[in-house]
Amino acid sequence: MLSEIGERRIIEELKKFLDIGDDAAYIRFGYKYLILTTDMIYQETHILKQMTWEQIGMLIVTVNLSDIAAMGAKPVAFLLGYGSPDISFDNFKTLIKAVKKQCERFDTKFVGGDTNQTEKLTLSGTLIGISEKPVLRSNARVGDIVAITGDLGSASLGTRILMKDGVNKKKLKNPVFKKALEPEPRVKEGLILSKYVNSMTDISDGLSISIRDIAESSNVGIEIELDKIPIDDRTFNLAIENGEDIMKHALYGEGDYELLFTINKKNFEIIRNILSVYKIGRVTKNKEIAGVDSKGVRFRIERGGYEHFKSKHQKEKA
Amino acid sequence: MLSEIGERRIIEELKKFLDIGDDAAYIRFGYKYLILTTDMIYQETHILKQMTWEQIGMLIVTVNLSDIAAMGAKPVAFLLGYGSPDISFDNFKTLIKAVKKQCERFDTKFVGGDTNQTEKLTLSGTLIGISEKPVLRSNARVGDIVAITGDLGSASLGTRILMKDGVNKKKLKNPVFKKALEPEPRVKEGLILSKYVNSMTDISDGLSISIRDIAESSNVGIEIELDKIPIDDRTFNLAIENGEDIMKHALYGEGDYELLFTINKKNFEIIRNILSVYKIGRVTKNKEIAGVDSKGVRFRIERGGYEHFKSKHQKEKA
Repeated sequence: MLSEIGERRIIEELKKFLDIGDDAAYIRFGYKYLILTTDMIYQETHILKQMTWEQIGMLIVTVNLSDIAAMGAKPVAFLLGYGSPDISFDNFKTLIKAVKKQCERFDTKFVGGDTNQTEKLTLSGTLIGISEKPVLRSNARVGDIVAITGDLGSASLGTRILMKDGVNKKKLKNPVFKKALEPEPRVKEGLILSKYVNSMTDISDGLSISIRDIAESSNVGIEIELDKIPIDDRTFNLAIENGEDIMKHALYGEGDYELLFTINKKNFEIIRNILSVYKIGRVTKNKEIAGVDSKGVRFRIERGGYEHFKSKHQKEKA
Repeated sequence: MLSEIGERRIIEELKKFLDIGDDAAYIRFGYKYLILTTDMIYQETHILKQMTWEQIGMLIVTVNLSDIAAMGAKPVAFLLGYGSPDISFDNFKTLIKAVKKQCERFDTKFVGGDTNQTEKLTLSGTLIGISEKPVLRSNARVGDIVAITGDLGSASLGTRILMKDGVNKKKLKNPVFKKALEPEPRVKEGLILSKYVNSMTDISDGLSISIRDIAESSNVGIEIELDKIPIDDRTFNLAIENGEDIMKHALYGEGDYELLFTINKKNFEIIRNILSVYKIGRVTKNKEIAGVDSKGVRFRIERGGYEHFKSKHQKEKA
């Protein structure tokens, strides 16, 4: 059964049949590349009860934009596969309007869709982008700086708290929750970074998985300095208030749509003057995925992160 | 509620937000057009109990290929959004292999996918094609011949019988059922026709809907000669055996992935020597959608066809 296999291996199996695969696929088209990605969100798995119809509409565009951003590509066109139970026409229109608006914010045409009646809300988005030179995960070089475009842990922490209790609406204004409900894709940043970085991916499935993806596909190791991982003060405080381990959320939590990239030192000096980016580690020759804490103690960073199609037991083991 | 509105109006509403729309969307890309389409299939609505995992895999590619064919475009790349309950890994692989194989048969790369755990099998496909001059629905001209690429009614009749009773496996070899379980997209035909026709669409939602789509978007009328509608002998006989009105299936049934097109007389003479095509009517100046029976009696062809999000009552009225 699929639950005995886990989503990662299912995706690995799926990839065997794919002609190409990274954060998104790329196919040559004249002197450029088409960048193609598809991402699905499902009521039970991805949609918090506190999300508005507008936020749901934004999210299905965002998750796909993030994959295009991770390739350093420019998004061009979006298509939506829409399935839902019999909701009100107004809610449907609110969701579709939000899809359109989120596309427009990132200069993307909303060009096609299909609708179906399904028992649970199921949205499948596809984004087509364009790039002259897509950035892959597989070109990290020994000596590269490992860096990230923003602070971590807030989306995962926010999601955790929202799932535990029905936080009242007033509280929702805390920007930590906004990151869980309205994550922003790093499209502009990805386009700028594409000219300077060696490898890149988004960290929507969690930092630890993304580090491993880059290291394994580039055949290198990565060492992360834990106290360099940027965590916003408000996130830090909210974690303490709720008895949550913020470092776990930062390393293994999902939902932060930041970009993780590796870059040589010279280029890092250039881009740190253009964008707010955080150095969190370096690419090493040995193939370990390691963390170093503030006392200099090294440890192995486990894969972790969220996988669908896994029983609770397996998730804890992972 | 969406059920009070009906899928057609929902799609109309959705289209207001779309930047472009026909059977598929088209966006300029240098000196060519990218053709983009997305189509979803859902366990309860589209998947017959008698379908094998292989046939389900083929179907999600076929429904999308048919939209690309209807634009007269060449399919290039396919992406799959996959959602299912916890099925066996072998069944999953069989389905994915069939997706890959159906892509290869039509020279299409299978480039991307996403997997999710959902309660019901839900597949969302996206196809990217390419065309130098996409064929729209909206260019039918008064005096054009209205023609179709194959015989009608078999997929709809086969589906009806399969849904009524669990036809035994031996019976399934009847080619009428094969058309319901393994429809073929008219990709090759669409590409050839694109050089000769004025307007084109696929008839996956039923002939009567497609006729109306062409007539309304071209601002013309269409007159169909009922006894010119091609119906295969085996389909005709199976209908009689099962007490079904085959003309209803041919006019209003869905699932026949043939192409409906309008073309001038000179070009029709050319393509009838290249492809097997059937003249079924003509484009008229008055804006009626009319049928003429063998006795010369004219009548209005209702919209009909299948719509999701509609109550039984409304479907009967429609």
